[in-house]
Amino acid sequence: MATVNENFLKLQAGYLFPEISRRVRAFQAENPKAKIISLGVGDATQPLPPAIIKAMKKAVNDMGRQAGFHGYGPEQGYDFLTNAIIENDFNSRGVDLEPSEIFISDGAKCDTGNIQEIFGLDNTIAVTDPVYPVYVDTNVMAGRTGPADKTGQYDKIVYMPCTARNNFIPDLPNRHVDIIYLCFPNNPTGAVATKKILSKWVDFARSQKTVILFDAAYEAFIADTGIPHSIYEVDGAKDVAIEFRSFSKTAGFTGVRCAFTVVPKQLMAYTKNGRAVEVNSLWSRRHTTKFNGASYISQAGAAAVYTPEGKKQTREIIDIYMANAALIRRSLIGLGCEVYGGLNAPYIWMKTPAGLGSWDFFDRLLTKANVVGTPGVGFGPAGEGYYRLTAFAKPADVKEAMQRFATALA
Amino acid sequence: MATVNENFLKLQAGYLFPEISRRVRAFQAENPKAKIISLGVGDATQPLPPAIIKAMKKAVNDMGRQAGFHGYGPEQGYDFLTNAIIENDFNSRGVDLEPSEIFISDGAKCDTGNIQEIFGLDNTIAVTDPVYPVYVDTNVMAGRTGPADKTGQYDKIVYMPCTARNNFIPDLPNRHVDIIYLCFPNNPTGAVATKKILSKWVDFARSQKTVILFDAAYEAFIADTGIPHSIYEVDGAKDVAIEFRSFSKTAGFTGVRCAFTVVPKQLMAYTKNGRAVEVNSLWSRRHTTKFNGASYISQAGAAAVYTPEGKKQTREIIDIYMANAALIRRSLIGLGCEVYGGLNAPYIWMKTPAGLGSWDFFDRLLTKANVVGTPGVGFGPAGEGYYRLTAFAKPADVKEAMQRFATALA
Repeated sequence: MATVNENFLKLQAGYLFPEISRRVRAFQAENPKAKIISLGVGDATQPLPPAIIKAMKKAVNDMGRQAGFHGYGPEQGYDFLTNAIIENDFNSRGVDLEPSEIFISDGAKCDTGNIQEIFGLDNTIAVTDPVYPVYVDTNVMAGRTGPADKTGQYDKIVYMPCTARNNFIPDLPNRHVDIIYLCFPNNPTGAVATKKILSKWVDFARSQKTVILFDAAYEAFIADTGIPHSIYEVDGAKDVAIEFRSFSKTAGFTGVRCAFTVVPKQLMAYTKNGRAVEVNSLWSRRHTTKFNGASYISQAGAAAVYTPEGKKQTREIIDIYMANAALIRRSLIGLGCEVYGGLNAPYIWMKTPAGLGSWDFFDRLLTKANVVGTPGVGFGPAGEGYYRLTAFAKPADVKEAMQRFATALA
Repeated sequence: MATVNENFLKLQAGYLFPEISRRVRAFQAENPKAKIISLGVGDATQPLPPAIIKAMKKAVNDMGRQAGFHGYGPEQGYDFLTNAIIENDFNSRGVDLEPSEIFISDGAKCDTGNIQEIFGLDNTIAVTDPVYPVYVDTNVMAGRTGPADKTGQYDKIVYMPCTARNNFIPDLPNRHVDIIYLCFPNNPTGAVATKKILSKWVDFARSQKTVILFDAAYEAFIADTGIPHSIYEVDGAKDVAIEFRSFSKTAGFTGVRCAFTVVPKQLMAYTKNGRAVEVNSLWSRRHTTKFNGASYISQAGAAAVYTPEGKKQTREIIDIYMANAALIRRSLIGLGCEVYGGLNAPYIWMKTPAGLGSWDFFDRLLTKANVVGTPGVGFGPAGEGYYRLTAFAKPADVKEAMQRFATALA
């Protein structure tokens, strides 16, 4: 008799975005003429810029000619992309990396979801609250947690609340943890971490032999020059941190699929009896056994992000999104709302007005303004009373959404 | 202290293909003028046909225009591809499937590697010997096995030997098993299963509540009209079987990345206390949580495989590979070799001459003929004394390789 992985049965039924879709569909069915604007899912809307299109067209052409055809590539990715990443994303910020420390993939969701497979089931996991659900759900599936309580939090996971009180920067855990997920610029709160803050986490991890899983998918949105883009800008981070990057938000690759993970050679984890094991070699084994490389066409497009034209053109797109963020911030502040994020991140995290619950505010905006955001409580109980807006919509839609907000909140 | 998944430490150091690469590199370094021909890895070499290139160019163009831009697609894949798959691959052979039973992905290696995650760690796994290493290694990583013995076989896995004695069709397991991996047309032996053979397996699985993981990545190479392309052509198979398909070999997508998995709604697995659980919903949860959809461009290319031009053009490419297979068979038989496969599969499985071991024969061919194949023993101990050749090389290379074989075996 084939048995199921019963850990899956612990998962909460309503993954956040399906529940949002369900409510939106129900409303739209009853109000077919309503023109709903979504500031909900963090999905790119601007078309890919010419330099990337040109590179991908060339790659498609390559695939149609004997001399240019590319079959299986290296599972870890092509050198042309790995080298461009190291030079532009890391060397430029004073960080040295070897090509063997970079693993190209088809997405940061996959990487942040899969990474836990190389660690023991006995590790205690710490996550922020609110948190990107993939970190938690993949650990539930693997069996590192007990059941969920009625707030949706799982037994055995250490949750680190992030609220206005601590400026959305978690305090160090008050009990022992083995693996910590951090995301800066943060999804969903839009908070960023200074070098001083990251140093505190790195020092803590070094003292505890803890591994930090650092999600930097939104680093391209950092505007303040003093904020680190990579955790490796902090001394000692290579001993303790894995970093996740993505072209999804940097260059609008949500439909193209390309990302990468950095696993420094010097990063160690341990057997139960204390023998140090290179984490890089474990991830390499996982990556080469359960993955077969990102599309050649996607990798060619990603490499174009690093050309002079590619840099300029992707910068222009990020500026469009950040102008959206500024407009959202300005409008909400003008309406008397308490607003966070949106300065170095494409996410704006607002306190719901008049103490409304996150889902109540969601329903109110949906019905009164036909605008869709994301209920903060969907990311964890500390998100209750907050609401996430993303800066990824088209500028005209953002403008109209803000006008409707003004009416709905009046 | 972060601990590692110690199951990874059970994995045998030398994954087959890296070991082959190492030997080839060493030989090439000592013999820089040698022109090595590879009939080793099963990687496409023919460029993609015009209908697919045209569709992917259009998709790239779409991505550069506001009206055509595609961000995140459904994790399960686009309807345009799912519907084409159902109509062409299944309805055409008398098999009905619902769109929700198809999961588009970036590769069959990923899918066959990831599928075990939704099943309990207590399941006993059965695989053929020889076997595609991914099925085994991913179960080792998950912890379903004990350590490997000196032949490379893992404790707790049930190995079903496939040799000339049983015509490379495994006997039913002689002990209880919960999950069975089958691959037809087979990699590495090139064997195919008739409807009668598949029915025997389906009946066995139904009687035992066993799940069959059926890898049909090579179905496009079936030439005999009586051989099923899908396990669902067998009555009752939807109750017990998951099927894996790929565009990699069908349409040369090894560098493009697109595949799919079929999980029928009626397929059940069980909790420890016997409650039936829909496997489809578990895979859906896994797929939507740890994966973010295949590239829009890859899916657009895959859909073009099903257009009239796409069908004709991909057929022509398969015919090229199958002409290679026929040439390899004819040549080897002419040299007095014992040869299997290659009639309905792109793999030719030969007995090594004069009782040579697989690696000895590998080294002999590498040094005497500068031809690279794959040692049969690399796929399992029952593969000792066999050698795999693939039909995927360029026809001129295959021709030359066969001439060199004649010299080397003389």
